[in-house]
Amino acid sequence: MIAHETRVRARYAETDQMGVVYYANYFVWMEVGRNELCRANGMRYRDMEAADGVRLAVAEATCRYSFPAHYDEEVTIKAWITEANSRMVRFGYEISSAETGRKLVTGETKHIFCNREMKPAKLPAKYYPLFGIK
Amino acid sequence: MIAHETRVRARYAETDQMGVVYYANYFVWMEVGRNELCRANGMRYRDMEAADGVRLAVAEATCRYSFPAHYDEEVTIKAWITEANSRMVRFGYEISSAETGRKLVTGETKHIFCNREMKPAKLPAKYYPLFGIK
Amino acid sequence: MIAHETRVRARYAETDQMGVVYYANYFVWMEVGRNELCRANGMRYRDMEAADGVRLAVAEATCRYSFPAHYDEEVTIKAWITEANSRMVRFGYEISSAETGRKLVTGETKHIFCNREMKPAKLPAKYYPLFGIK
Amino acid sequence: MIAHETRVRARYAETDQMGVVYYANYFVWMEVGRNELCRANGMRYRDMEAADGVRLAVAEATCRYSFPAHYDEEVTIKAWITEANSRMVRFGYEISSAETGRKLVTGETKHIFCNREMKPAKLPAKYYPLFGIK
Repeated sequence: MIAHETRVRARYAETDQMGVVYYANYFVWMEVGRNELCRANGMRYRDMEAADGVRLAVAEATCRYSFPAHYDEEVTIKAWITEANSRMVRFGYEISSAETGRKLVTGETKHIFCNREMKPAKLPAKYYPLFGIK
Repeated sequence: MIAHETRVRARYAETDQMGVVYYANYFVWMEVGRNELCRANGMRYRDMEAADGVRLAVAEATCRYSFPAHYDEEVTIKAWITEANSRMVRFGYEISSAETGRKLVTGETKHIFCNREMKPAKLPAKYYPLFGIK
Repeated sequence: MIAHETRVRARYAETDQMGVVYYANYFVWMEVGRNELCRANGMRYRDMEAADGVRLAVAEATCRYSFPAHYDEEVTIKAWITEANSRMVRFGYEISSAETGRKLVTGETKHIFCNREMKPAKLPAKYYPLFGIK
Repeated sequence: MIAHETRVRARYAETDQMGVVYYANYFVWMEVGRNELCRANGMRYRDMEAADGVRLAVAEATCRYSFPAHYDEEVTIKAWITEANSRMVRFGYEISSAETGRKLVTGETKHIFCNREMKPAKLPAKYYPLFGIK
């Protein structure tokens, strides 16, 4: 799975009274980024959930903020896989201004593969290629 | 079920760059108000969902805005039932500043009773007293 | 200003444990719709705020829910102006599934034109054509 | 400034279709925790912003997830300062179930003191005691 870029525009709802995008909302954008990364690689997360009961439970999430996004600014969310095995997957993210190219934030999330009951479970082998697992 | 008052404090996350609470977030506060209204009357919505598969699907929601809430302001959410029968329930809301008493917004929501499959379904009779249905 | 259609995809963040998009989030989508409606008509709301201090304070918001949106579903947000004068503007919305065409919700919002201090103020005449005010 | 504990109840709005609180919302709870930590120590963040133009720009945010919070569950947000100087402050957080005592998440945020123009600026000395800076 190679890196993928998605674009979103900052919503009024996502700003706070400091006049910039509220810090927790970058994690929502990361979710958009990893969802579209999967789609671009031929897999929809919703299908993986529905067909095989595979769920990704978030174990860690980090964001480093360099520069804030502003209302109505279009941003580019770059997402990619940094590490994966049958038990877990790590995604990396870089969010930058689509208008100026300036880097806004970088982030990572780590997810544990779980079954429908949200218990840790090995990823079905058919998904190995998607995540680059050998 | 008589009217009930709950207090919440406006979060930074709930403000927008106009420096006030974003308009959609009052609907979240209404949810808090009706949840606490039920609890105050001896019923937890989560139990109704878990025990009997009763779900309330929102059919209509309205808010009229008189004055905005500001960050860190404590507000009082008053909620009550305005109409109910075995098929649906309507809630009324008034949200005011707990500091000044000034009325901020009024609202209503209408909900259809549904089963686990989210199909309209009559409310089990044991819940009639809770909603004041005869 | 003629009607405009925008597309968004339902985010995981926007769902709730009923497995559908949380009712308050349709108001966020309406904001996206009216923002893009303005942009499609040659005006950016952020410029109106920055250049002339014109702000739109929400006075009323209503949503009628016919069918819920689901995670990862692409929806079409249609927005248009239903009424406008120098003091206020009303927008209408229809949100439908981009996949099935099924209507999900309809809504309206009413906004009062305000100045930088958030006091009601007549809209500068140069914006009349944008809102179809004669 | 010693550690402080605040309680909030998980809102329906904060859940996602996995039936648990959406991962980004723990960062909102951290904000509630640090806001109440300041208040418990005699200082309101809103006053610091209004009186002296002091703003805290988030530089880093991390969350490690052990166990999810569920709808209507009451949680305890413990917040404290882990490091502070005239340029920045770090907060630590532990969020646990108020019902079972089970630890749900731990987190940290790092903030840079800024002026009204959001440029890094030394914290006014009068706030040193609040943050435990010598």
